[in-house]
Amino acid sequence: MSTGKILVAQGGGPTAVINQSLAGLVLEARRHGAIGRVYGALHGVRGIVDENLVDLTRETTVNLEAVAATPAAALGSTRDKPDLAYCQEIFKVLAAHGIGHFFYIGGNDSSDTVRIVAAEAQKAGYPLRAIHIPKTIDNDLVGNDHTPGFPSAARFVAQAFAGANLDNIALPGVYVAVVMGRHAGFLTAAAALARRFPGDGPHLIYLPERVFEVDRFLADVKATYDRHGRCMIAVSEGIHDSSGAAIVTQLAKEVEKDAHGNVQLSGTGALADLLCDQIKDKLKIKRVRGDTFGYLQRSFLGCVSEVDQLEAREAGEKAVQFALWGDSNGSVAIRRCGDYAVRYELQTLEAVGGKTRVMEDELIAPAGNDVTPAFHAYLRPLFGAELPTVARLRADAVPKVLKT
Amino acid sequence: MSTGKILVAQGGGPTAVINQSLAGLVLEARRHGAIGRVYGALHGVRGIVDENLVDLTRETTVNLEAVAATPAAALGSTRDKPDLAYCQEIFKVLAAHGIGHFFYIGGNDSSDTVRIVAAEAQKAGYPLRAIHIPKTIDNDLVGNDHTPGFPSAARFVAQAFAGANLDNIALPGVYVAVVMGRHAGFLTAAAALARRFPGDGPHLIYLPERVFEVDRFLADVKATYDRHGRCMIAVSEGIHDSSGAAIVTQLAKEVEKDAHGNVQLSGTGALADLLCDQIKDKLKIKRVRGDTFGYLQRSFLGCVSEVDQLEAREAGEKAVQFALWGDSNGSVAIRRCGDYAVRYELQTLEAVGGKTRVMEDELIAPAGNDVTPAFHAYLRPLFGAELPTVARLRADAVPKVLKT
Repeated sequence: MSTGKILVAQGGGPTAVINQSLAGLVLEARRHGAIGRVYGALHGVRGIVDENLVDLTRETTVNLEAVAATPAAALGSTRDKPDLAYCQEIFKVLAAHGIGHFFYIGGNDSSDTVRIVAAEAQKAGYPLRAIHIPKTIDNDLVGNDHTPGFPSAARFVAQAFAGANLDNIALPGVYVAVVMGRHAGFLTAAAALARRFPGDGPHLIYLPERVFEVDRFLADVKATYDRHGRCMIAVSEGIHDSSGAAIVTQLAKEVEKDAHGNVQLSGTGALADLLCDQIKDKLKIKRVRGDTFGYLQRSFLGCVSEVDQLEAREAGEKAVQFALWGDSNGSVAIRRCGDYAVRYELQTLEAVGGKTRVMEDELIAPAGNDVTPAFHAYLRPLFGAELPTVARLRADAVPKVLKT
Repeated sequence: MSTGKILVAQGGGPTAVINQSLAGLVLEARRHGAIGRVYGALHGVRGIVDENLVDLTRETTVNLEAVAATPAAALGSTRDKPDLAYCQEIFKVLAAHGIGHFFYIGGNDSSDTVRIVAAEAQKAGYPLRAIHIPKTIDNDLVGNDHTPGFPSAARFVAQAFAGANLDNIALPGVYVAVVMGRHAGFLTAAAALARRFPGDGPHLIYLPERVFEVDRFLADVKATYDRHGRCMIAVSEGIHDSSGAAIVTQLAKEVEKDAHGNVQLSGTGALADLLCDQIKDKLKIKRVRGDTFGYLQRSFLGCVSEVDQLEAREAGEKAVQFALWGDSNGSVAIRRCGDYAVRYELQTLEAVGGKTRVMEDELIAPAGNDVTPAFHAYLRPLFGAELPTVARLRADAVPKVLKT
């Protein structure tokens, strides 16, 4: 029996398909004769330093497949970002267990963690190969056409907006929904794909790629409301003023920061409420409602893109292949190579770690409050199956008798 | 050709299946020789007084079926509650168009509207038969085992909690989700069906049927957090103190009231944020997140119970049958008559209008912060298909080498 051991962990925010990458990796690794053991670390790098490891070699295939279809991160996750001392603790554990390959499934911060761990390993003379497997609903990893997790979250946002649009037609008013995405507006922009009929919302889409001006926003809302008698608005949680300050901080008295120095934007309804108050106060519109999609958009059970599932699975499989057949650290990247087809490449950790992709200019309408047809063409194939059908009555009006 | 004319309208909050009742009614009515025209009023009773009617007799069957599968209210809805003068305007329009039967698909307030319209018609000597067709995600209509719209919304809440629970296992902390339900806790209680494994959330469920005490709440959260290292909480938007005052008003400076004199509880994240602040401040727990499910729970596209769809459809069909084969006003009621089977009866408008059903005591755990097995038995068959599968890793721990 082979004595080769590999270790896999999951980091950052959970997604609908991160366990597909885990299952893809474990099942592929178990096929390779060179690998005797597949260990998993509980709660990311934290599980390594705490030596909380599980032996995934002993999982049944049936249960791995069931876990693959389950959202969130089955190994548990962490927001920890290792410094040098933290990395030294990691190497101690890896050495003690004879692990030569480390796979980390995660987003922006996790990819940077892999870069730091790999760099510190090299400096320390520890023979480690480290591979990052992409995952983030924010779709903000450079070098990727898109990232696993984004298509499913985008589908949730589109389905949520399609339903909210119907609700808003039935009981007209202004509706503001705040969508996740600190620096990149892809997920908020996905709301655009909820439109089917002329006049459908969202009518306005505000992205962190553009400066948010409250006066301009109110003018947009008023113009839309005057025209349609209602207004549906998709807003990124990361909208900011020209100085870069988050709009939500105008309201929040206390802002909580996580270990990465990020202001807390999720898990609070403050931004939606602030914007609704502005609309009520300044525009004197009576029925104004705000929703914050919150954790549902990344964790809702039963809303997933099958394209996303398959690609997340393949990303895990490819990571093992890159690790065993290559001899370099790197980050698995999804490249689009057809309409619609993808291939997987290994890019350097330096190319992706700590960098943030934002929406390209050609995806954002010149007015800065909508997307372009190019964005629709980009996103639609990632949904897999079409969204559920939406229909309208087309019945003729009955001629008036009294009010002719 | 028959000259009989009937009118249908939709009132109150939209649901996932209210258009099933509309389609069931229209398709059934078109089968009856006595009915020559099926009119629909746009935006409920408001559409009647404004004489905004459409001829549903001229809708294609294909489009009616497509509309049936579409959430929200295809005819549009209203929150208007007619007084005597409003009713007189309604009769004028009904008389002008020769309409003898009025069908109103709606909830508590809508059923009361039907009662008022019917009573005023009798007083005014206008020969009107009025039938109410139940619809409400709140499940708060008396005389019904449950109401169309509730099962689909309950399914959304359960799927949302099941996903949020997995997310919270991956990144532990306290999670508070606010669910719709002003007086009745059924929809909040539905979160209980998200649990699969021991230790799964929600760990605490707070319903408007019980007095909410902040100190007791904080003690419950602390005990749960100490035990599980995390805590998932489902809270009804309608929770109130012993004086009956809504908890959210402790925070909100301005409360908006609708035409029925109800305080606005939905469309704002204030209650979740208030409760999270309490937990952070008093219990010193760092990671505390709040979501407000908002309009998604009643409008999300693609989350529906097929049992709910079929029953809503039948409720519309039965309304026509009761109207043509009986000669009385009334409200269609769903009664459970098996495990699982239902029958439909016509109850009086006085029995249902303006009254509110709340959760029966046997459905609420004695401690007041959870439901009973009887509630699980009550709700589960209404979901139709089982919830999507959720699995956990069962891999053995790797023996520690360093920290033995």
